[in-house]
Amino acid sequence: MRNVEPIRWTDEGVVLLDQRRLPGEVIYLTYTDYRELAAAIKDMVIRGAPAIGVAAAMGIALGVSHSRAKTLPELRAEFKNICDTFARTRPTAVDLFWAIDRFTRKFESLAQNAAQNNFDAIKDSLVEEAQQVHRERRDADEAIGRFGAELMPASGRVMTQCNAGALATGGIGTALGVIRIAVETGHTLEILVPETRPYLQGARLTAWELQQDKIPLTLITDNMVGHFLKTGGVGAIVVGADRIAANGDTANKIGTYAMAVLARENHVPFFVAAPISTLDLSLASGEQIPIEQRAAAEVTHVYGVRVAPEVNVANPAFDVTPAKFIAAIITERGVARAPYEDSLSRLAAGAQTPAAR
Amino acid sequence: MRNVEPIRWTDEGVVLLDQRRLPGEVIYLTYTDYRELAAAIKDMVIRGAPAIGVAAAMGIALGVSHSRAKTLPELRAEFKNICDTFARTRPTAVDLFWAIDRFTRKFESLAQNAAQNNFDAIKDSLVEEAQQVHRERRDADEAIGRFGAELMPASGRVMTQCNAGALATGGIGTALGVIRIAVETGHTLEILVPETRPYLQGARLTAWELQQDKIPLTLITDNMVGHFLKTGGVGAIVVGADRIAANGDTANKIGTYAMAVLARENHVPFFVAAPISTLDLSLASGEQIPIEQRAAAEVTHVYGVRVAPEVNVANPAFDVTPAKFIAAIITERGVARAPYEDSLSRLAAGAQTPAAR
Repeated sequence: MRNVEPIRWTDEGVVLLDQRRLPGEVIYLTYTDYRELAAAIKDMVIRGAPAIGVAAAMGIALGVSHSRAKTLPELRAEFKNICDTFARTRPTAVDLFWAIDRFTRKFESLAQNAAQNNFDAIKDSLVEEAQQVHRERRDADEAIGRFGAELMPASGRVMTQCNAGALATGGIGTALGVIRIAVETGHTLEILVPETRPYLQGARLTAWELQQDKIPLTLITDNMVGHFLKTGGVGAIVVGADRIAANGDTANKIGTYAMAVLARENHVPFFVAAPISTLDLSLASGEQIPIEQRAAAEVTHVYGVRVAPEVNVANPAFDVTPAKFIAAIITERGVARAPYEDSLSRLAAGAQTPAAR
Repeated sequence: MRNVEPIRWTDEGVVLLDQRRLPGEVIYLTYTDYRELAAAIKDMVIRGAPAIGVAAAMGIALGVSHSRAKTLPELRAEFKNICDTFARTRPTAVDLFWAIDRFTRKFESLAQNAAQNNFDAIKDSLVEEAQQVHRERRDADEAIGRFGAELMPASGRVMTQCNAGALATGGIGTALGVIRIAVETGHTLEILVPETRPYLQGARLTAWELQQDKIPLTLITDNMVGHFLKTGGVGAIVVGADRIAANGDTANKIGTYAMAVLARENHVPFFVAAPISTLDLSLASGEQIPIEQRAAAEVTHVYGVRVAPEVNVANPAFDVTPAKFIAAIITERGVARAPYEDSLSRLAAGAQTPAAR
């Protein structure tokens, strides 16, 4: 259940699983230069906001550890340059800036006590901090998984969407973490995986990831979701989230809203699994969440092959699922249920809640 | 509005638009040998049950017109051989057998009055009959289009599914016929076209077909249907049908059921446009409609490129939309509304009904 590892800190450098080439080829690349690691993030060798946060943390540590700066001002300038390089890779990924902020605070606190002309202690501490970021990420996924597993059916089918897995977080995943822990703790599940056009994260990443851990799955196209919720014996749906408003409205990969409506029509409970960092309590409702519009070529071309004439195309990457369709939101601090204004604000303030109420 | 012609009888032979190569290439092929035309049906040069029926009718006429039979028993044996060849091409297409039955009755009625050793009258009559089949098909589409156009919004977006167009019928199409007549009669519409995985009939065929007639469209992936019904200003949905049960439950391309549920949730009227021949009053409800399961490779490969690992795949080609989600069923004899047991049986018995009640 722990066979997928998209990122790893090693003595040789930062090792990434090249997600661009999945599922056809399984290739690990080792990065010893932070600039090459930044280019890899930009090129989608690794993707998923939480995993990008881990990669940026490791990249900053990697860059500083190879520094030849002789003075603290030199080192500080180099540190800032490294952070700026990562900030430019995927500027919409919130976790990237969270990692840069965390490392900037850590660097300044270390710099105050630094020995003259010997920065080994700073370098060692930042490397340790990067590994700590990765550990915290893994721990959060495990906690989400444990809380969520109790909500999964004892047997039958569970549907997910896109890839909210190890490949996206660097842990065991959020939605797929719930599924992993459920299977480990004795639930007999088969996962229904919609392919998730246009970028095919379901077919290319989730199907591959579940296969690595020998979790039974059936791949379907996105327009089969309704048919299988009506006739396919689905006991639950669990998906990830890109942003959650204070009232529980949830932005996630396009198609999630339709899945939630079809779930309610067919009396299938619909769960969101996401870390506390996904909450955006500054937004009262999902209507305020901006929807990223992506390039038409993702729709008109598949692996470079044109599949449509030159016509007008819409390509919103996300949609918003109103909270009324969501049975529960599973976080590393516990499970929130409606009314979400209350339950989410309590969790955000740090309160642990019982797993299932 | 009449720029797409997938099949045409000419003095040189039967001309087909090669739908396998759309939208990349627009190529017309002329068939002078019925065996090659049968192979073309099998190879999906032309597809869509009504269009296949027209092609088989023309193919039988083509085969008989080239016969060198000297006696009536010889001609009858050849006729039967020709019909058998077409029966083997796409054995699930109901219209194929309807065409063969019609031509068999016509042949026997002509044979009774045939002159000795001169079968020109038979040949001419069968060629005329094939063109009559095509005319009736076109007339039915035009009537469906006229009845349906009155149900379309005066302006705004209309969503469809798969290809229920000229390419599928040989006329102006059923769902796309409604859209064509609506646009011709002054409705200002933009059509939302889901790509319709796995075979991409929406992207490859419907988008191309609408483009030929300069009808504005936006292509989307199938998992965007819910998002656009919620936020995209869609005034109506019109889709085709593969089979309609006595109670109005409708089998159509996979994804249609989800579209209907999402339409009701968002107060968008959902219409089915289909000829009377699609009614199967022998089935009390949609639960008795068999669902064709197709090959996994359609899902795992796009234009021959593998897009998923080797995993278990489901590929139902159709789903069933319960009648309660259908605002009206538009036929060439008029518009049926709930309760469908009554309205459909009246239409099947031959009654014309007012266009909109």
